[in-house]
Amino acid sequence: MKVLVINCGSSSLKYQLIDSETEQVLAKGLCERIGIDGRLTHRPTGKDKVVLEDPLPNHTAAVSAVLGQLTDPVNGVIADLKEIGAVGHRIVHGGEKFASSTVLTDEVVAEIEKCNDLAPLHNPANLIGINACKELMPGVPMVGVFDTAFHQTMPKKAFLYGLPYEYYEKHAVRRYGFHGTSHSFVSKRTAEILGKKPEDLKIIVCHLGNGSSISAVEGGKSVDTSMGFTPLEGLVMGTRSGDLDPAILEYVCNKEGITLSEMTTILNKKSGVEGVSGVSSDFRDLGDAAAEGNERAAVALDMFAYRVAKYVGSYAAAMNGVDVISFTAGIGENDITTRARIMEYLGYLGCKLDAEKNNVRGEERIISTDDSKVIAMVVPTNEELAIARETVALV
Amino acid sequence: MKVLVINCGSSSLKYQLIDSETEQVLAKGLCERIGIDGRLTHRPTGKDKVVLEDPLPNHTAAVSAVLGQLTDPVNGVIADLKEIGAVGHRIVHGGEKFASSTVLTDEVVAEIEKCNDLAPLHNPANLIGINACKELMPGVPMVGVFDTAFHQTMPKKAFLYGLPYEYYEKHAVRRYGFHGTSHSFVSKRTAEILGKKPEDLKIIVCHLGNGSSISAVEGGKSVDTSMGFTPLEGLVMGTRSGDLDPAILEYVCNKEGITLSEMTTILNKKSGVEGVSGVSSDFRDLGDAAAEGNERAAVALDMFAYRVAKYVGSYAAAMNGVDVISFTAGIGENDITTRARIMEYLGYLGCKLDAEKNNVRGEERIISTDDSKVIAMVVPTNEELAIARETVALV
Repeated sequence: MKVLVINCGSSSLKYQLIDSETEQVLAKGLCERIGIDGRLTHRPTGKDKVVLEDPLPNHTAAVSAVLGQLTDPVNGVIADLKEIGAVGHRIVHGGEKFASSTVLTDEVVAEIEKCNDLAPLHNPANLIGINACKELMPGVPMVGVFDTAFHQTMPKKAFLYGLPYEYYEKHAVRRYGFHGTSHSFVSKRTAEILGKKPEDLKIIVCHLGNGSSISAVEGGKSVDTSMGFTPLEGLVMGTRSGDLDPAILEYVCNKEGITLSEMTTILNKKSGVEGVSGVSSDFRDLGDAAAEGNERAAVALDMFAYRVAKYVGSYAAAMNGVDVISFTAGIGENDITTRARIMEYLGYLGCKLDAEKNNVRGEERIISTDDSKVIAMVVPTNEELAIARETVALV
Repeated sequence: MKVLVINCGSSSLKYQLIDSETEQVLAKGLCERIGIDGRLTHRPTGKDKVVLEDPLPNHTAAVSAVLGQLTDPVNGVIADLKEIGAVGHRIVHGGEKFASSTVLTDEVVAEIEKCNDLAPLHNPANLIGINACKELMPGVPMVGVFDTAFHQTMPKKAFLYGLPYEYYEKHAVRRYGFHGTSHSFVSKRTAEILGKKPEDLKIIVCHLGNGSSISAVEGGKSVDTSMGFTPLEGLVMGTRSGDLDPAILEYVCNKEGITLSEMTTILNKKSGVEGVSGVSSDFRDLGDAAAEGNERAAVALDMFAYRVAKYVGSYAAAMNGVDVISFTAGIGENDITTRARIMEYLGYLGCKLDAEKNNVRGEERIISTDDSKVIAMVVPTNEELAIARETVALV
């Protein structure tokens, strides 16, 4: 079956058309500046990239343009829309309602709407994408795959905050965790590569990208993860602060004369390694700057590795042990130096890096020594493929 | 030398008179409700407790009443104030200026005043106590012992937050850490008991009381600690939330219609195990409630132990190993069940609890098995004695 995977943001839309039998990507692309002007970059596999600057007044127009390209006589990869057997939608927040992927019936869509409050920037955009597809591809089954679903197995001791309990009961304030599709995919693939059952492993997945999160996966289930109520908590990220003393918010608001809402925006968009370094949120830029003697860039990289190592340590405690540490996503897959820095802290676990094996980018590989007690590996993530698989499994 | 140790709060004042040669407490006590009505509880060693309900309009009156009791013909323990050779003051916040205890000259007091902004509830009260003593005991040398000083050895990767760097430069926003006198005392005593040099040990000190913090002490120096810019960060405490997603503040403020300042107060005073359980901030109450089937009390205790274990795990990573885990303060010294719960997570470190040895309250004792790779111990803290020692060393 050919599955169209849609990841819809407020003014953007990413897509991939995947053949579920071969698991090959037939085409992928991105609509940007939806509702502003519009730009569609279409990459059909084996053909040249196409860039269209036609207006995209809304998401329905964007989906329509995507479907047009997919079936275009020149740039297309399918002859007829009827070849698309199903659509898989990435949905950021499934609240406590969705612990797994779900066929998108009207009732389910109504339930997703109820989670809008928990992800006001993302869920409404996801829903717009669902509605646009429904309009243009009536009758094609659609599946919602939630970023939060994989983490719904967390026990209460991990998902509750030390807050008045009524905030959980009345306002659903708890740890949800994100990047669940990736944590699920990578932990399953980790077990597969090692020829073991997920049930028999304690895995720590380090999803390190511009947004970063770590999960503790015990017996195939997420038991803890570093992102929380929102994707702001946890590691220091590209532009997100991650963990900090909650009392800092009032102090800085008063000092800077800004509102809480402005502060939260700064914590999401102007903080992290970019805020610390003053250089960039991109680790390659930071590495270059540090090599040229920029101390703040060096400190930002130090902080990043240090905090990752501390989370790995804390999740080893959470599971009373760890068998495998898997690195994934942009930094996890490609940043050799950062992986090495993180691993320097972990000798006490009996985890030994093989520097030569670590010299790898974007490939599945064990990077620890043969006698390492804990296995370290690189396992590239593939969220779109994971969404396609979940979709096929349900339709 | 006889040293008067003063711990001054906004409406309270705790004191101990300690003989520095014998390290015995000659008398101790507490003034409460200063500026409201007043109440002095005086406990001279070997004599009956005295409770006075005389008005204490201000801190000078409180210090005066304390000095009166210490030299009282009946309740007193010294014949003349001249016997007091020095006064040691607990001071909460020394900012980045004070990395060790300091004789309180006028210049030093002025520098402490500059830190008021960082601890607006505590430092001004500490200064009032200093001034009251100065007035009533002119010429007696005084020493300031800072809660933050021991942690000033933290490296930048540990003390910086993932925030715009100018918040550190302009507003001194960073991790300071607290309970430093206790972490210092307990880590030194831990080494002493084991007959080792602090330089040769990696120690994790778990100071678990109504306020709780953990520190990683490597080679005698604090390299990380769980409290941060304020004592709100870190573990779930009696009434303090500890770590949470910073985005929760805006969400809850909007939902509850409260201000950021009200929210911060709730995070400090209505959260923690009390907020989660709805029962109490006292672990004995929580234990009783959990035993009677109260699920929220049980979850609160679970969360507490789980988070302590995660911090222990993260600090093992921070130091790339750990030799000793020392439990101290109210819960750490006395709560046998909570210690056992925490230790259940730590088998992967080769840390094995000896259930029989763990059956101890408030006594120095190794509680791990003889073959445990990591030693676990109970080491009662004594902040007043630590302050007295620091004071004598400087005058």
